[in-house]
Order: sequence, then structure tokens, then C-alpha cells
Amino acid sequence: MNKKDFSKHIELKNIKITDPFWSKILELVRTEVIPYQYEAFHDNIEGAEKSYCIENFKKAAIAAKEIREGKKRPIYPIDKWQYTDENSDKNAFHGFVFQDSDFYKWIEAVGFSLSNHPDEELRKKADEIIDLICAAQLENGYLNTCYIINNPEAAFSNIRDYHELYCFGHMVEGAISYYNATGNRKLLDAACRYADLICKTFNKDNKKGYPGHEIIEMALVKLYEITGEKRYLDEAKYFVDERGNRPYYFDIERGRATTKEDYFYYQAHRPVRQQREAVGHAVRGVYLYSGMADIAKIFGDEELYSACESLFDNIENKKLYITGGIGATVDGEAFSFNYDLPNDQAYAETCASIGLVFFARRMAEIHPDSRYHNVAERALFNNILSGMAEDGKSFFYSNLLEVDPEACKKDSRKHYVSTVRQKWFGCACCPPNLARIISSLGEYCVSQNDETVFIHQYVGSKIKADNADIEIISDYAENGRVSISVNPKKPIKLALRIPEWSEGFSVSQPYEIKDGYAYIEISEKTEIKLDFKPKARLVKCSNRVRENVGKAAVSRGPFVYCIEEVDNGNNLQMIRVKNDSVFVKDGEEIIADGFREKEDSSLYSTLKEIEETPCKIRFIPYYRWANRGENEMTVYVRI
Amino acid sequence: MNKKDFSKHIELKNIKITDPFWSKILELVRTEVIPYQYEAFHDNIEGAEKSYCIENFKKAAIAAKEIREGKKRPIYPIDKWQYTDENSDKNAFHGFVFQDSDFYKWIEAVGFSLSNHPDEELRKKADEIIDLICAAQLENGYLNTCYIINNPEAAFSNIRDYHELYCFGHMVEGAISYYNATGNRKLLDAACRYADLICKTFNKDNKKGYPGHEIIEMALVKLYEITGEKRYLDEAKYFVDERGNRPYYFDIERGRATTKEDYFYYQAHRPVRQQREAVGHAVRGVYLYSGMADIAKIFGDEELYSACESLFDNIENKKLYITGGIGATVDGEAFSFNYDLPNDQAYAETCASIGLVFFARRMAEIHPDSRYHNVAERALFNNILSGMAEDGKSFFYSNLLEVDPEACKKDSRKHYVSTVRQKWFGCACCPPNLARIISSLGEYCVSQNDETVFIHQYVGSKIKADNADIEIISDYAENGRVSISVNPKKPIKLALRIPEWSEGFSVSQPYEIKDGYAYIEISEKTEIKLDFKPKARLVKCSNRVRENVGKAAVSRGPFVYCIEEVDNGNNLQMIRVKNDSVFVKDGEEIIADGFREKEDSSLYSTLKEIEETPCKIRFIPYYRWANRGENEMTVYVRI
Repeated sequence: MNKKDFSKHIELKNIKITDPFWSKILELVRTEVIPYQYEAFHDNIEGAEKSYCIENFKKAAIAAKEIREGKKRPIYPIDKWQYTDENSDKNAFHGFVFQDSDFYKWIEAVGFSLSNHPDEELRKKADEIIDLICAAQLENGYLNTCYIINNPEAAFSNIRDYHELYCFGHMVEGAISYYNATGNRKLLDAACRYADLICKTFNKDNKKGYPGHEIIEMALVKLYEITGEKRYLDEAKYFVDERGNRPYYFDIERGRATTKEDYFYYQAHRPVRQQREAVGHAVRGVYLYSGMADIAKIFGDEELYSACESLFDNIENKKLYITGGIGATVDGEAFSFNYDLPNDQAYAETCASIGLVFFARRMAEIHPDSRYHNVAERALFNNILSGMAEDGKSFFYSNLLEVDPEACKKDSRKHYVSTVRQKWFGCACCPPNLARIISSLGEYCVSQNDETVFIHQYVGSKIKADNADIEIISDYAENGRVSISVNPKKPIKLALRIPEWSEGFSVSQPYEIKDGYAYIEISEKTEIKLDFKPKARLVKCSNRVRENVGKAAVSRGPFVYCIEEVDNGNNLQMIRVKNDSVFVKDGEEIIADGFREKEDSSLYSTLKEIEETPCKIRFIPYYRWANRGENEMTVYVRI
Repeated sequence: MNKKDFSKHIELKNIKITDPFWSKILELVRTEVIPYQYEAFHDNIEGAEKSYCIENFKKAAIAAKEIREGKKRPIYPIDKWQYTDENSDKNAFHGFVFQDSDFYKWIEAVGFSLSNHPDEELRKKADEIIDLICAAQLENGYLNTCYIINNPEAAFSNIRDYHELYCFGHMVEGAISYYNATGNRKLLDAACRYADLICKTFNKDNKKGYPGHEIIEMALVKLYEITGEKRYLDEAKYFVDERGNRPYYFDIERGRATTKEDYFYYQAHRPVRQQREAVGHAVRGVYLYSGMADIAKIFGDEELYSACESLFDNIENKKLYITGGIGATVDGEAFSFNYDLPNDQAYAETCASIGLVFFARRMAEIHPDSRYHNVAERALFNNILSGMAEDGKSFFYSNLLEVDPEACKKDSRKHYVSTVRQKWFGCACCPPNLARIISSLGEYCVSQNDETVFIHQYVGSKIKADNADIEIISDYAENGRVSISVNPKKPIKLALRIPEWSEGFSVSQPYEIKDGYAYIEISEKTEIKLDFKPKARLVKCSNRVRENVGKAAVSRGPFVYCIEEVDNGNNLQMIRVKNDSVFVKDGEEIIADGFREKEDSSLYSTLKEIEETPCKIRFIPYYRWANRGENEMTVYVRI
């Protein structure tokens, strides 16, 4: 770790996105996703599973008032993951235990969106809900509707399962985003009061715990950065340091000892510094690793950084789908073992890829090696974008690389697969997570330190860096071409990521390559032309991945492609692409040469010459699949 | 259905197996499996899950006595699938609800074995247990230890789940086998008394039910055949006819109506005559279909026969593994949808293939088309034999076509996969089922009617048919050569199945081919030489099966082959066999020419020329896999 390498992302207010590709998507989030979410957590969407989010805050506000007034309140059990009309009293908490986070994720996206696009009416709506949320806060700072409504005495008694600290983490992130955009401190102040309670509760002299679902680590670092209060940073470090120590806090909490390393799922099976393989619930994993990277950077903690490097390395080289998906198994929504990357039973949750981008950004801000943003690019342009329909109205939770609708309906092993995007989810993590990463995209594109401005993602934008004004005119997604004009306030370097797929790129200015970035000395107003020359190509997956041997995927620039039944007929497995195919672009699509095998008439027969007819194969960008109805799809095609 | 086609298998006492291949296996069953089973259901095997079978019969005998004496007995709940020391009273029934069948399956195998190989000591042991079993029978004929011990009043109150009628079916089959071998009627008489109770209980005027787990249908037909009591046949027909009618009996029993066709799992979703696709629990399915074929034949029921034909056709052409395995999914141990035949997540339970052989034999005895015994051969030589280790001491329950031990340990989707055979199973269906089919192999080889003797399976044997003495000297398994000497008592035809894999077979006598059988007129003592000329060949699976496209399996004669890590190194997916390979036999093994891909160093890379080195690939018969420790295996190899 070399402090001179460190950089920090540009704040959203200093970057204005103008990109032809991404602006459309930001606009979808602003005009479709954020309003839809608002209706969803108000339970106004017919046919959708209810959120109960606002209803819970209303109940909690009444409860908080009664508690302040010393009124005796009924106690309801907190022993489930989800509370429904069937299994709980109508006056008790409803929905999933983490339902408060529905609002916090929304307010975070709203904050980001308001930074790009002021909207007085939206701000008014948000302010009103914030008033409600704050009314639910207890005098000691506690703020979680499940416990406030059902049994405040039981607060923090099951932090492995019941997500209080997770909801707090989202509260902090939401509060900061909204404060940054609007200057309204109310939610931020509430978050600080709650944070203070948490600092008092979890420390070496009291509860030596850490959350079952990570996020609090990065959230507290952000809270430290915005408030300057070191205790929040120390608390974040405490959570990182304590995690996985023996005796296990989760054992103590459960009152039952484990004999094995049982807490893989929570990344709490051993101290984080000893973790080298990404395991367990993938979203939790990358959220933790992001927090670890934050702490490693701020404290110059080499040991922790080394664990982060190993974990990133393990993901990048052994657990990453070509689409940037991670978390290969539905079972525990978890990382599977090395090289286990099934296509038709992938999980590859949208949220997990989003968390991977969090992690990649932090690693790049410690050491600017292009590998980090190469991975982030893979995730952003493929697995993450796939999470949302082209009209912004429906979403994928898991993002498979091969789908046969018949199998998904008839094979219970694929029970979790949606063959078309869904309107909303009771467990609404992916759509709001998509909304927040897309609307904060600027934070992932550029970082800076005293000497250098790093361009990690070529998103068209106007940037006010500390030492330069920069304008990026980007035709990167489509044609790999970028123009950058830099107007420096002092001599700086501009570091430009060379995407891994680029062969024979050109840069109009003299440059030096280091760790995959082209460094250009800038001492005066300069125009730089980049051409990364994207070419459609076949990509081979390592033959350690059993099911991809003998197959390849088409890739061009940042996009991975797939074939769909609607273009290529059904039984996509019968199609084979020519290894030396000419690829012809047709708009966003690519036409390749291949063969289609004749359908066999009997189940088993002596192998003879395989009958094939030449065919044209139409590839579309992976993220655009399933926008034309339910049909077969595959990323990998036989060669 | 043409009655002139009908034939009937030769009784075991009239066929003496002398086959070089099969005799070893019969001997293993006699010397290893049957004695091991005896110890297992006496709970004498250290480390094995307890059966409690004999213990339950002892408790039930005491209970039966107390009931006869009018003593008040305690009532224990019957609400579980399995009763353990933890979840039930020590005086209550223990084990799975179907645990009685452990003994019945054993006594059936013992009967078959004694037919081939008299053994006074074994017979004495068996007689003693039969005395115990009979002591447990209630005065009304009822005999199921779970209900007798726990609550006799509740008998027949949950025939969907609690397997009383299933245990009865096995009791009948065991009793008949033992009676045939020894002339001891005691168990058979007990079975008749129980059968009479069942006839009185389940009929159009009383409970209009049918069992959740089929077998009673074929068992009652056998009981009719041995006793001549038509009421047993009528009861079998009643169970077949009633199954799946509306309103569902299972709804009535549960006191809750289903709105959909919910009883797929039990093949009770619709009347059996309307069933065209094999669905649900595979063992139950083929047991039912076998019973349906029995009834169709005896009653000349064309509609029922047509359903049987469709079901067989569906299995043969869309749901059959190349190894003769059926029931592709672990979920419900069930048939999956058409062409869903995953290799590394197969289920292909040993018992299901055994049941398929039951079904195939019955179909062939209605109409002698070689397709039936082609399927039976596939199952017998591959999936079924694979169920047992070469030393007869350990067993597979599921028989996968591709195994990666790492995946089976680390991927919870493969939790059910044993990478090596297991000693015994708490749910002990497969080893005893293997024992009974192997020791009754003679019943599957030959059938006869007035005019014709059909040789379905070329197992070396001496046969006393009604109209001829026949000796088969078989080198079929190894070299595809068979000598048959027939000494007719009157002019007959001999019908010889031509195996589907034979190309350019030769028959030493003039013959006519019909439906895959070569018919030879025999009017005097005749020697026939058959040569089916097995050749190692690559077999292609239909490209409707997604995961086998671009691959092939090696097959020779009745055997399917596989490759193992111990012979070919790990990462078997990197191996490719030459389409035009020369195959060299090396004992039972086959050496082929192929290539091994160099291991890729990065997870994703632009597809270039694939680096391969020529290699020799060693194939072993599938049934012999996993006899040399835990290792990778695959049946299908890339071409």
C-alpha cells in the first residue's frame, strides 16, 4: 500500500453526467424507478407483495410517543424473518425484518438524483417522510421499527439475523446522500444519534458483536467522513476487527456453541484478516470487503489490505461470471466454490454485482490498477444493467447466463429463476440498489489526488476536479471512442484506464502505461482523443469451468452478448458459432456465422456425421435480454 | 393387444442360472448382501442408521397379544415419517413408517436365492422371523407394526403418506417368493388374511382409496395367481381404476380439497387411463405402471394397455438415461420433464431402474417387441449393477452420469450425491431391491406361451420350459456370442431378441424377424449359434438433451462406459475423444484416442487456437465406477 497511490472519488455535485448511453438509464431511474419505489413502500402497487415500510414507521412513531409518555405497550414476538397478516397481530410490525431499509435505499437514490436533477416536489415528499421517520426515533437514539413496535427491550438481541445494524447502515447512507444533495440535516442528525447509541452498545466493554448482514462498516466510514467524528470510524474498525473472533459472538448471542467454522454464510467463520476466499452470502461478502478496504486505506492497515487483495483476486480469477455476476449459488445466495459458475443455475444477484463495484472502486482508490475497474465495467454494463428492463419497470434479482423457460417452470431446482423481469419483490433489495448505483454513477467514474485525476469509467460528463475542469465526450459504449478536454489549474497527470478488451488502442497524447492506466502529463488546456477500437470477438472461459468447455461467448467493448430464441429459434443448444466467424454489426446487435444441428429423431443413436445447416446467429447485448417476452437465452454458444 | 402374443415368464424353479457374468453377481447377493441385510434389520451393523425392523415386530407381537387379551394399551402419535429416539417414546414404533418392508424385501430375496441355492440354515433363520411376524398380526388380519404399536384405531387413516399398503405389497411378494422356494405357507397365509381385510376395507362401498406408494397392484395380481382367489385380482383392479378419480381420495383423507391437479407425485393427479406422461416419484410410477400392465393383460383392457404403451414410450424416448436410469430429479425422486436428463444432478435411483425392468418385462409379455427388453438390458447392465460395489458390500442409491467430488461436497445442490457407495441406508430400499431383482434374474430372461419360447435376456442357464428343455451357453456380456440348444417336446418357435446395438448379427438357423425378435421354427433338437458382434462405438444423445450436445458416450454390447479420474487424470471436462477413434479392448476396458486441452491460465481470454495434446483415454464399464476410491467420473465425453 502506497499512500501516494491513494485517490478519492469526485463528489456527485462536481460531476454532471452527459453520456449518451448512461443518461437514458439515469433518466429511467429518475422518472420510473424512484417514483415506483415511492408507491411500493407506501403499498400502493396493486398485485405487488406489500412492503409495509411506511405503515411500520407510522406504527413506530405512535409507539415512540407512547414510550415517551410512559404508557404501557403490548409486546409482540420477534422470532421470524417475515411478519404477515397470518402470522402476526395487526398492530405489530409487518413485512421482512429489514423493511425499514426500503425507505433508506430510496432516499439515498433520491439524494443522488436530486444532485443531478433538482426536483422541488420530490424533495417535499422526501422531507415529509423524514419527519415521520424521525418521529419514530426513541429518546436514546434507537430507530428500528420492528423492535420499537414489537418489543424495544429486545433491541440488539439477535444481530445475526434481524438486520437492525443493516437497516442502520442504509439509514446512514441515505441520510448522507440526502444531506449532500439538499443540505437538510434532519435525517443525518437522527442517524448520528442512532450511531452514538450503537457506539455505546457495541465495543470491547459491552456487546462484542458485529452484524449478520454487513454494510455498517462502510456506512460508518462515510459518517465519519461527513461529520469528522472519529468515534464513527473507530466503531467501523471495531466491527471489522471483531468479526470472526473466537469465541464467536453469534454463539454467545444464540447461547449455543458451534464446534466447526459455521459462520461462512456471514463471513464470520474466522477473523477477516485471515480470509482469503470469498465465501457465503455474496452481497454480505462484498459489502464487508468494501468496508475492510475503507478501513485498510484510512488506517494504512497492510494486513487488512492484503486480505482485501486476496479476496478480490479470488473473485476476479475464480468466482466471476463473464457478465460480472458473482454469487453462483441460490443456496444462501452465496459464492460457490472456485470455478463453479453454472449458467442455467446461476444466481448472480444484481445486488451482489453492485456490491462488487463498491469493492472495486475502493480497491482502485487504494491502488490504481486497471483490474479493479475492468471488473467494475464488466458488472456495470452486463449483470447490473440486466437487472432492469429497458423501460425501467421491471427487474431481475438473479441474472442467469442460460435460461430455458420450460426448465424454470418444471424443474424445482430452478424455482428461483424468473424468466422475465418482475415488477417488484417483497424482499426489495435489487431495484432500489440499482436505483442508487445508477443515480450515483458519477462516483464510480473519476477519482483524484493531489497529482493525478484518474478516469476509471468513460462516462460522458463535465467534472469539476480539485485541480482541473474536465469534459468527457464519450462514445465509449458504442464505439470505444472518447474525447477528453482538460483545463488544469496546475500541472497534473491524467490517468486513463485502458480496458482489458482493447487491442491496439490509440491515445492522441504521449503517455506512459502503468498498471493498465495510461498516464498523460497535463500542464495546459489539452484535448485528448482515445480510441479503444472495440472488436466483436469470441471469449473463452477457462476450462476449469466445467460447463463452458467447447463453448465461447461473444463480447465487444464492455458488452457481453447473448442469443435469444426470438431471434434464433428455440433449442439454442443446437446452434454452433464458427470459430473464425466474421462478425457484422447491425445497430447494437451482432450477426455471426454458425450452424444449426438437425434435431435428432431418437434419444440414443450411433454417432455419425452430424447434420448441420449453416445459419446466421443474431447476438444482442446481454443486458437487453428478456425485453421481448419469455424465451430461451444463452450467453455461451458452442464453437 | 393380441392374446396370441401373450407369454408368461418361466418360474424360477425351472431356470438354473449358469452365466459366467451373472453367476458371480448372484453369488455376491447370496453370500454378501442377504447376510448383511439380515444383520442390518437386526440393528447389528455398527455405524449404520438403525432399521428397528425386528425390534418393531417384537413390540408389535407384544401389543397384539395385549390387544387379544383386552389390555389397555398406550397410544402414541402417528404423525411423522421417521421416528427416532429423540422424537418418540422408547416403547413406541421406531424408524421410517415403512420399516416393516425391510424384512419383506429380504425374505423375497431369500426365497429367490433358496430356489437357486438351497441353504438349510438360512431357511431356519427365515422361519423363525416369520413366526415373529405372524405373532404380530391382529385377529382381523391387520399387520403393520407402526399402527399396531402406536395406535391400531388409526389404521388406514393416512394411506397417502404412511405406507401401510406399500408394506403389505412387499409382504405379499416376500411371502410368495418364500412359499415358492420352500413350500412354507405361514407367511403367505398371513398375507392372505391381511389381504382379506384390505379387500373388505377398500372398495366402492367403504373407503374409496388407493395407496400413496404403489406396489399393491402387482402384489395382489401375484397373490391372485398363486391362490386363484379372484377377489385379490378384483381388488388390484379396483386400486388401479380408482386412482386419480375426482373427488380425490387424498383430499377426502386430508379433509382439504385441492383445486389443481396436485397429486402428480403419486401418479394420482388424474385417472390412470388418462395418464400419458411418466411423472412424479419414479419408483412409485413404474410400480404402478407394472400393476397397470398386469391388469390390462388379464382383463384384456385395451384402454389401460394404451396408457401403458404411452407411458413406456414416454420413458423410453424422452426420460431415459443412456444407463437405463430414470427419475432425473432428486426433488421428489421424480421424473423430470421431457429431455431433462442432467448428468451431474441426475437422481436415477437404483430402485427406479429395477421398477422399470418390472414394467418392461410385463410389456414384453403382452407384446413381444424388442424395445422392452432393450430398455431392460440397458437398466440391468448399467444403472442397476452400478448400484452395488464389486464386492457386494456397498451401494449407490442415486446413479449419476458425471461426478466431481469437490462439487458434491461443496455444492449444496448436490447434497444427495454419494461420491462413493455407502454401506447401508436408513431408508433401505435400494440394496434389498437389488438383492431381489438379481436373485430373481431368471424371471426376466425367458417367457413362454403355447407356441413360442421367448429369449429376452441372454443369460447362461438351463431352462425347463413347458414345451422344451433349453440350455443357453452365453458369452453375451463379453463377446455377444450365445449358443442355445433346444430340445422340444412338440414343434415350437424360439423367439430371440436382437439387441438394438447389434450391427450385422448372425444366427445359425433360418429365421424371420418380427418386432426385433428372430423367430426360428424348432421341431427337433436344435443347436443355435448367435453372434451379435458387439463393437465399441460412440453413442450420441439426442440434441434435445441440452447438456449432451457436442458430446458422446462409449458403448459396447449391453454396456455403457465411463471415464474415471484414476485412469485419466482430473478435470475430465478437458478431455475430448476423437470421433473416428480406434477403440482397443483391454480386458473389460476400452482404450480410445483423444486429446487433452491445456489448462487455461486466466478465467476469460480471447478465443485462440485451442492447445491440446493427444492422449489415450481409458474407458471402463459404467457399472464398475467408484470401485477404486473417490474420484471424478463422466459418461459423456466431448467429441
